[in-house]
Amino acid sequence: MGYRVAVVGATGNVGREILNVLAERQFPLDEVAAVASARSTGDEIDFGDSGETLKVKNLEHFDFSGWDIALFAAGSEVSKVYALKAAAAGCTVIDNSSLYRMDPDVPLLIPEVNAAHLDAIAVQQKNRGYDGGFIVTNPNCSTAGLVLVLKPLADAFGLEKIFVVTMQAVSGAGYPGVASLDILGNVVPFISGEEEKMEEEPQKLLGKWDGSRFIDAGMGISAHCNRVPVRDGHMECVSLSLKKIASIHEVAEVLRDFAVDDELASLPTAVRNPIVVVDEDNRPQPRRDADAGNGMAAVVGRIRECSLLDVKLALLSHNLVRGAAGAAVLNAELLAVRGYLQYRNASKLSVAEPIAR
Amino acid sequence: MGYRVAVVGATGNVGREILNVLAERQFPLDEVAAVASARSTGDEIDFGDSGETLKVKNLEHFDFSGWDIALFAAGSEVSKVYALKAAAAGCTVIDNSSLYRMDPDVPLLIPEVNAAHLDAIAVQQKNRGYDGGFIVTNPNCSTAGLVLVLKPLADAFGLEKIFVVTMQAVSGAGYPGVASLDILGNVVPFISGEEEKMEEEPQKLLGKWDGSRFIDAGMGISAHCNRVPVRDGHMECVSLSLKKIASIHEVAEVLRDFAVDDELASLPTAVRNPIVVVDEDNRPQPRRDADAGNGMAAVVGRIRECSLLDVKLALLSHNLVRGAAGAAVLNAELLAVRGYLQYRNASKLSVAEPIAR
Amino acid sequence: MGYRVAVVGATGNVGREILNVLAERQFPLDEVAAVASARSTGDEIDFGDSGETLKVKNLEHFDFSGWDIALFAAGSEVSKVYALKAAAAGCTVIDNSSLYRMDPDVPLLIPEVNAAHLDAIAVQQKNRGYDGGFIVTNPNCSTAGLVLVLKPLADAFGLEKIFVVTMQAVSGAGYPGVASLDILGNVVPFISGEEEKMEEEPQKLLGKWDGSRFIDAGMGISAHCNRVPVRDGHMECVSLSLKKIASIHEVAEVLRDFAVDDELASLPTAVRNPIVVVDEDNRPQPRRDADAGNGMAAVVGRIRECSLLDVKLALLSHNLVRGAAGAAVLNAELLAVRGYLQYRNASKLSVAEPIAR
Amino acid sequence: MGYRVAVVGATGNVGREILNVLAERQFPLDEVAAVASARSTGDEIDFGDSGETLKVKNLEHFDFSGWDIALFAAGSEVSKVYALKAAAAGCTVIDNSSLYRMDPDVPLLIPEVNAAHLDAIAVQQKNRGYDGGFIVTNPNCSTAGLVLVLKPLADAFGLEKIFVVTMQAVSGAGYPGVASLDILGNVVPFISGEEEKMEEEPQKLLGKWDGSRFIDAGMGISAHCNRVPVRDGHMECVSLSLKKIASIHEVAEVLRDFAVDDELASLPTAVRNPIVVVDEDNRPQPRRDADAGNGMAAVVGRIRECSLLDVKLALLSHNLVRGAAGAAVLNAELLAVRGYLQYRNASKLSVAEPIAR
Repeated sequence: MGYRVAVVGATGNVGREILNVLAERQFPLDEVAAVASARSTGDEIDFGDSGETLKVKNLEHFDFSGWDIALFAAGSEVSKVYALKAAAAGCTVIDNSSLYRMDPDVPLLIPEVNAAHLDAIAVQQKNRGYDGGFIVTNPNCSTAGLVLVLKPLADAFGLEKIFVVTMQAVSGAGYPGVASLDILGNVVPFISGEEEKMEEEPQKLLGKWDGSRFIDAGMGISAHCNRVPVRDGHMECVSLSLKKIASIHEVAEVLRDFAVDDELASLPTAVRNPIVVVDEDNRPQPRRDADAGNGMAAVVGRIRECSLLDVKLALLSHNLVRGAAGAAVLNAELLAVRGYLQYRNASKLSVAEPIAR
Repeated sequence: MGYRVAVVGATGNVGREILNVLAERQFPLDEVAAVASARSTGDEIDFGDSGETLKVKNLEHFDFSGWDIALFAAGSEVSKVYALKAAAAGCTVIDNSSLYRMDPDVPLLIPEVNAAHLDAIAVQQKNRGYDGGFIVTNPNCSTAGLVLVLKPLADAFGLEKIFVVTMQAVSGAGYPGVASLDILGNVVPFISGEEEKMEEEPQKLLGKWDGSRFIDAGMGISAHCNRVPVRDGHMECVSLSLKKIASIHEVAEVLRDFAVDDELASLPTAVRNPIVVVDEDNRPQPRRDADAGNGMAAVVGRIRECSLLDVKLALLSHNLVRGAAGAAVLNAELLAVRGYLQYRNASKLSVAEPIAR
Repeated sequence: MGYRVAVVGATGNVGREILNVLAERQFPLDEVAAVASARSTGDEIDFGDSGETLKVKNLEHFDFSGWDIALFAAGSEVSKVYALKAAAAGCTVIDNSSLYRMDPDVPLLIPEVNAAHLDAIAVQQKNRGYDGGFIVTNPNCSTAGLVLVLKPLADAFGLEKIFVVTMQAVSGAGYPGVASLDILGNVVPFISGEEEKMEEEPQKLLGKWDGSRFIDAGMGISAHCNRVPVRDGHMECVSLSLKKIASIHEVAEVLRDFAVDDELASLPTAVRNPIVVVDEDNRPQPRRDADAGNGMAAVVGRIRECSLLDVKLALLSHNLVRGAAGAAVLNAELLAVRGYLQYRNASKLSVAEPIAR
Repeated sequence: MGYRVAVVGATGNVGREILNVLAERQFPLDEVAAVASARSTGDEIDFGDSGETLKVKNLEHFDFSGWDIALFAAGSEVSKVYALKAAAAGCTVIDNSSLYRMDPDVPLLIPEVNAAHLDAIAVQQKNRGYDGGFIVTNPNCSTAGLVLVLKPLADAFGLEKIFVVTMQAVSGAGYPGVASLDILGNVVPFISGEEEKMEEEPQKLLGKWDGSRFIDAGMGISAHCNRVPVRDGHMECVSLSLKKIASIHEVAEVLRDFAVDDELASLPTAVRNPIVVVDEDNRPQPRRDADAGNGMAAVVGRIRECSLLDVKLALLSHNLVRGAAGAAVLNAELLAVRGYLQYRNASKLSVAEPIAR
């Protein structure tokens, strides 16, 4: 007793990781479809480490009707056409591209941060005339880790200003992505569109849905984005100022104590404590810490005073898991457990129960 | 007709680079001594690519009398004892360690930035009873590039706040330095003492000598320092606020137009324009840009608006050359041409003239 | 109901990995001691990912009596003194250093390859007057993977000549080991003593114990050893000639079919098929394949004809697991299950049974 | 007074390096044309570090008549059509692709190795009805360094068998070439077609032109080719057997003494001693040695006995310079000085004379 899930862009870097996550975390599946462009049609791809393989289906001819969930990881050009088509067919679309993230009726969702934004779905369905289907998006890979860490601070102290410099792994650029000639022993201080996303998306994620529209969080954010010769794991150096005075100790405690409620914790891909605070001076590090919480935790270290703002810290999150594939699957799990799925909402199947772990 | 120069710590990473610079830029030498600890005594080391080798002398028994210049690149422990001894013996000591940088009577010198600080030498000699000798220091390797870029902005617009995140090359940690197991495919968000130096040294460098003491520049500075798997070249992401309103275009022009005067430009190790502004979005990069101006230029790119402060930019400088060896030799050249050298100041030998280039 | 195991050199790269393997594979333990030099005494180190920590004991004062197994991973200088002391105290010593590997009465052991060499233990005990204790060694990290792959070929076809070029990971050199300045973006065509070990150890491993001495296998072996900027996993390009004519297909089948017997397969650290044959042209690769069989399998690919000898292939094995820590623990498991352990041999405790997996 | 030179594939990795070499070594030029596919037409590219830029011309419409030399670095597909067209138009074509290398009437040329093969040009012109034009090729990048080192050994002692394993830099695969996700911290034991080229091309290079056809050298060669995370410089581990008995010392002396004659030494891109023998155990290394002889020398180290064949050694050469761009330009220089150029052979302009160095 599970769901019918289509993964669009299944042969790409993120698509494969979605299949990994679905297989490893044992998302309750009746059927999984690997969908991609005509070029890959008929190829066999691994369904994670399950030993099973999936035959790739052609997106052009794929019928989304009857599929509970469509996870899109094929870029904005594909989402432009097919995500709309899938939503219109009644699917719950979870889009990893940046295309719809800032749309006024589309939730940009991190379950631990802004599950209340799901209320926008009803408005979206009405606006667009969707019958059961809808679109939810997950944030940019470097935004995801940042906002997860900002969330408890925003709740406890309020946030005013955030200064962030990223050092991003090459897997964030997909495959083939960054040429080895450009990045071996090098740093590239530019990732197209990334700084804009990092300055914009947190405003929506940490903002509110007021019943008819999203209200920005209204923080000041400045981002510098860099590519570094690291495989997986985006590192971020952050300085921030708080609305309420707090000691470094209090900030650390709030981060350390951040825990999700039982509903969220029961989701296969969730971790109870999605922020891990490390005490060593030289942590977090991509190679040692990217897999914390099965790649779903953000790891925070070096929490200390900032001489310009209030707090300095370093954070790391796994760009492919927390920043893309795991984020998408976790969104699917939340939507499932809350009964948003068109084809299954009669039964309101629990996501957590049928899973043998 | 040249100088007698001793290089202390000649077998280390910076010491060897000092020998490279002396040989390549053809510093006018009568004699050069490679001085190091007992362990290396008698070893033959290359005098740059000149084809000549030097026999390493034992620091413990080295007599600094009669040597015009002693370039120290052996760490604070060595400078603690022997830099004082050399200064007392009448040498011009140029110390690359951090030990004396913030001393109230010791110039922390970047010739293009604060040559006027040399007036402190007379006070130092009086304070310490030195007869002809004295100590001058060069800044920390990541401070050097930063302050070079800040200088024309401070002069043109005034500086209020500086936010800087570094991505530093492994050669900055000396040899053997960073273990490959720690840095291959990784980032380490900590370099011991580095953030403190970067927040402190620019205040002195951009401040003033008022005849009896140094007056801090009084900027707000916040630094995060990281080690990345790059061989040479420290990259820095900088946001800053100016006292006077300026457009991005004006900021870029001031940086582009920064040029030194004829006295400085005549020094063998100097470049006329020590800041290179690049227009490509994805520059500067360590591998492509670290050698700009023979390693003595800072390369600046991505000059753009900052949503929190006024200006964002990325800068790069060669940590071993501009940040250490070249900095030390350039300091020596300035002191020589200005007649500060005890053993040569009768003749005020020109540095530039005898050089065949 | 388990064993008392001391890990000597527990704070080093291999020592920590031994603790990882003991914890992960759930070696049946009554007690585990982390032993190291005075410098680390009292430090707390992790017992793998178990959550437990161990307080480091001082090797100088450590009493080996009553400890079933002493796993030595502290280098030849330490083994020279303390391995002998432990064996004399009645311990089963498993030494990862190269010191005793070629001794005429010491087994150099790979359980899948030459378990019959354990018969030499009785001679060793007699020769050296050991009462219950003895020394067994595991091979050099690049020899281990090579010989595992050669074994079924030697059995099926006989081996005449082996040409091998290694590309070895930095973790093979311990910590801090290789300086990042030496290996970032570089290859070093030399590892001290490595080629000699690779040309010598396989002769003993694939040779025979005739009741009183080891008879060399008598193959011709030529090795070139290189260090490459890879974290874990030694890659080896091998050409070899066989005594019996065989097709490439037969060679591949023999490798693919290599399986251990039930006794060996029951050991916690063993895998039933310790050779994995991959079909893709561009495999094996350290990053993708080093963890095959929990790091205990050798991965072989590109099996093809050689225009000088008979067969060319590429092989990879995890230098820290198959090449060191896993090898040592597997040796311990075999000795335990065969009743070689002085302090436990009354009971002949099964290694495999008490393990809950 | 110089030549008219067209560089086809000028925007690629090798094409740009050819422009660098032409500019740096001051090849005597009347005019240089940067030619590429329609996609790049009109782009401005740098003419090395000369400060000049070149406007890219469209290959489809480029008229090769009147151009002395056409250097092709655009791959086999382009050479298939346009190299023939250029030769038919009277150009001296120097092709970097593998397409024509093994053709029975096309010289595969390394000037230091087989300049006598130029006698095949007359046959080629006759065979193909070329009026003045012809095609000469340069070898595969890993073959180039190998054969340069084999040449003096073949002459002095005769060569029987060669076993070679390469560790090749990513720049050998062009741009974008190898994806960073494939090679960061990794080794890939496969380069398509490379082993075949390395086993085939040396036979022709070290063979003879008998007046009507090329006679293979008849050595046994076995090659394994690997990609490693290095930017520039192909490393090769070589074992070889000689026809005549020679000591390691004699082998080293023959390599060390290898020098070209005055005609060759006078060419701008040539070096008098194209083999550099290093004595340190851990050399050559790509990062330290790839630029030896301005990238035109092969660096040899670790000359020692082989337990299977006679001699083991490690060699390194710069794949972009000696292995591609420098090789092509040196071929052009030799052809120019020997009067092979259709449009200039009335005057037999000296290559070396007009160069101000």
